[in-house]
Order: sequence, then structure tokens, then C-alpha cells
Amino acid sequence: MYKVKVFVTLKESVLDPQGTAVKGSLHALTYNEVEDVRIGKYMELLIEKSEQDIDARVKEMCEKLLANTVIEDYRFEVEEA
Amino acid sequence: MYKVKVFVTLKESVLDPQGTAVKGSLHALTYNEVEDVRIGKYMELLIEKSEQDIDARVKEMCEKLLANTVIEDYRFEVEEA
Repeated sequence: MYKVKVFVTLKESVLDPQGTAVKGSLHALTYNEVEDVRIGKYMELLIEKSEQDIDARVKEMCEKLLANTVIEDYRFEVEEA
Repeated sequence: MYKVKVFVTLKESVLDPQGTAVKGSLHALTYNEVEDVRIGKYMELLIEKSEQDIDARVKEMCEKLLANTVIEDYRFEVEEA
């Protein structure tokens, strides 16, 4: 079994209103040292071992479903679990 | 400046309908080797250096705003940026 951690983040050039809202709330709570907040998604997949290449399969899943590659970047880490 | 990466995940005992839906979609796309999907949040904070302890400050932010500790776990990594 593999444990795959996928991180999906908005591209730098894309506005992140959710992050801006969270930054505003942190400032309201007196955490004024926070300069910027960007919010993304974190996914953990448990994947059965097969003869197929795990990196290629996960890349396909990201491109097809897990990330919107027009506005988002993704990266992932594969661990044996 | 610090770059802080915060990972917020649902506790093991909490149902994750979003993850279940994504797993269903992956199976529909013929990725049947996917056994389980859990979805969480990933946040990147840029924080100004100050004389206060960065770990303690970020822990407070997580407890107060970024995570709902009743149903979610969080962890974070601090890097110099």
C-alpha cells in the first residue's frame, strides 16, 4: 500500500479571496505579523500496490480530477504505508 | 520572514463525505487501486519575524481560527523565507 500526499495550491498569479479573508480574521485577532495567507487543498490517498507506475498514475489523477491546472499547481509525495 | 505550512485534517473518527465523493470519481475514471481518500486543508502563511516565539504564535492561530479542534487535527512546519 502507498500513502500519497497531494498538495494543491492556487498559482501565484491567481487571487485568493479566502486567504485574504483569513488574513483579515488573523489581524482582527491581533496576529498582525501575518503578511500573507494562501489557502490550498491537502489530500491523502491510500493506493493499492500494482505493477503500474505509482508516480505516473497519481500525476494522471491530479491532471484529470484533483487539480484544476488552469489556476492551480499541484505536487505530491509517495510513501510506503 | 517565516514561511509556515499548516496542514489541517479531519480526525480519523470523523466521516469525510468529500473524500468519499472524490474516491467515487477516481473509481469512475478507472483508478480502482485507490482505497481511501481523505481531504484536508493546506495553508501557507508568511509571517514577519518578531521577538515572539513563532511556534507558540502559530499554535494559537491554529487553535483559535485555522482548525476546528473538535473534529480536526493540525500540524505545521516553520521555514525561514
